Amino acid sequence: MDGKLIIGVDIGGTKSAVVLATEKGEIRQRRSEPTQPDLRGPLEVLERLAAMARELLTAENVPSGAVQGVGVSCGGPLDTKTGVVYAPPNLPGWEGVPVKQFFEKALALPVRIENDANATALAEWRFGAGKGTRNFVFLTMGTGIGGGVIIDGRLAHGANDLAGEIGHQTILMNGPLCGCGKRGCLEALASGPAIARLARESALYGRHRRVLTLAGGRPADITAHHIVEAAKEGDPFAIQILEEAGTYMGVGIANVMQMLNPECIALGTIAVHAGDLIMKPIEAAVEEFAWKRIRDACRIVPAALGDRGQDLAAVALWITDSD
Amino acid sequence: MDGKLIIGVDIGGTKSAVVLATEKGEIRQRRSEPTQPDLRGPLEVLERLAAMARELLTAENVPSGAVQGVGVSCGGPLDTKTGVVYAPPNLPGWEGVPVKQFFEKALALPVRIENDANATALAEWRFGAGKGTRNFVFLTMGTGIGGGVIIDGRLAHGANDLAGEIGHQTILMNGPLCGCGKRGCLEALASGPAIARLARESALYGRHRRVLTLAGGRPADITAHHIVEAAKEGDPFAIQILEEAGTYMGVGIANVMQMLNPECIALGTIAVHAGDLIMKPIEAAVEEFAWKRIRDACRIVPAALGDRGQDLAAVALWITDSD
Repeated sequence: MDGKLIIGVDIGGTKSAVVLATEKGEIRQRRSEPTQPDLRGPLEVLERLAAMARELLTAENVPSGAVQGVGVSCGGPLDTKTGVVYAPPNLPGWEGVPVKQFFEKALALPVRIENDANATALAEWRFGAGKGTRNFVFLTMGTGIGGGVIIDGRLAHGANDLAGEIGHQTILMNGPLCGCGKRGCLEALASGPAIARLARESALYGRHRRVLTLAGGRPADITAHHIVEAAKEGDPFAIQILEEAGTYMGVGIANVMQMLNPECIALGTIAVHAGDLIMKPIEAAVEEFAWKRIRDACRIVPAALGDRGQDLAAVALWITDSD
Repeated sequence: MDGKLIIGVDIGGTKSAVVLATEKGEIRQRRSEPTQPDLRGPLEVLERLAAMARELLTAENVPSGAVQGVGVSCGGPLDTKTGVVYAPPNLPGWEGVPVKQFFEKALALPVRIENDANATALAEWRFGAGKGTRNFVFLTMGTGIGGGVIIDGRLAHGANDLAGEIGHQTILMNGPLCGCGKRGCLEALASGPAIARLARESALYGRHRRVLTLAGGRPADITAHHIVEAAKEGDPFAIQILEEAGTYMGVGIANVMQMLNPECIALGTIAVHAGDLIMKPIEAAVEEFAWKRIRDACRIVPAALGDRGQDLAAVALWITDSD
């Protein structure tokens, strides 16, 4: 295992990337291009990615024996054992695609696959905010709220690879409808689209003017990005919206803490961009809704890898404790 | 390891028991007596339990080499590594008691210790409702709502042995005060005392007459037991109270399912006594608040061991995968 290289394949709805990396997470080579799942079928996308992987090996003059394996990070649901991907929302038309099997044949290497949230959690755990911990939870705060749970040094998969759907715990029993079809999910209260919706719904009496200006005057165009920007400028309306979303997020995080007693929880995307504007209300809610003994054992921090997280996600599948 | 015996010590607030059992969970000998933590100090209680353990070995004519180890189940918080017990609510005066160390010296055998909820979860997993699963959650529904989480064949401990506090997730952000000091915990909405409180608070317009009669006419004496009894007789008021508590319980269970994707969740105490009267509303809420793919992979069942669960809790600490 020592000194071997890893091929990481990140299949996203917008762009896909292939990297060649070391076991320490150093990226030697990287290629990326738009995925275009609407224009190209799954097989075409996969063949292109395999070709890119071969290009990387050629460019670095790497003999195939020097590669430990291929890691694939892809939108779920998927089956980590069979390696079949089942209709991820961000990859329309990918119904029952045998991704693992494809790369095993195309590259003649062992392949591991995880859904993107779990793979990013592994990357933050191995290389980023969770490094050195045994019990770690990663939560994205972007378009959705996805998560990955590491317990006692191992990623939790659950019965059918759906562990870690922390964004779809219920925070408000009669809360707003979530994209998943349920009501009052954390994702419906604290994700990017939820923050934008809170702002649109609260856009009364002219208090939302700064946010609206940033959105070009069109309420329908308001995004979480505009609210974070306005809050950074000191706009009280935007600050209040982030406080509301942060409070819900804090309740969801407190629930995770009560169930799993992690040492560290890392928050991605909006938490990284907004910083204290969202971290402070999160911490205040955690103080109210989690036990002191549990809080005292747990750091809540922004994710550390930023955009590198996605690149390292697939690579992290091949990092084991012996490294 | 084959064919060896295990000594199980269950230290409860009311009674304590010592058993001698096989690795298959067959109890060969059992002694129990009131714990009386208010009358006897921790050392006195522990010495009595060690004496009882020696009696069992003598009674069965067991050479010490035939015993694999001692398992101790005790109210938490406690540290499973050092084996020190820190002021459990049900054992007043037990502040920093080195329980593991005590039994190691007293019985000259290796000792393992877990909090009672985790130990009972292990027992239900090894011998009861969760047998044969890799991802299992156990939840008591008694005086409190405690839990234990088995993930990929291992008990989750978390950073400081507080994983599994599922009863203290927040279900209603502005809900009733919980015994733990937080608001809106699952335990404050669906435990035995919570069910009794729901009944007392809803005891209007004479609809609660049957429950009140069972409680001897004194509203303050209403317990969950009276409500379950009245519901079994068909009393609509009592049935409605169980429906309300079951709905909250179902939301809490759905949250666990979304986070951990277990194969089986077993519910103890009230769920066992009330049967469908509480299981049906639980299932209805789970159907509303958990994803179909996750629900379809998970059985929700009453605990299978009943009172044997407590006896086998400490024994289960010594059962390993090789058995």
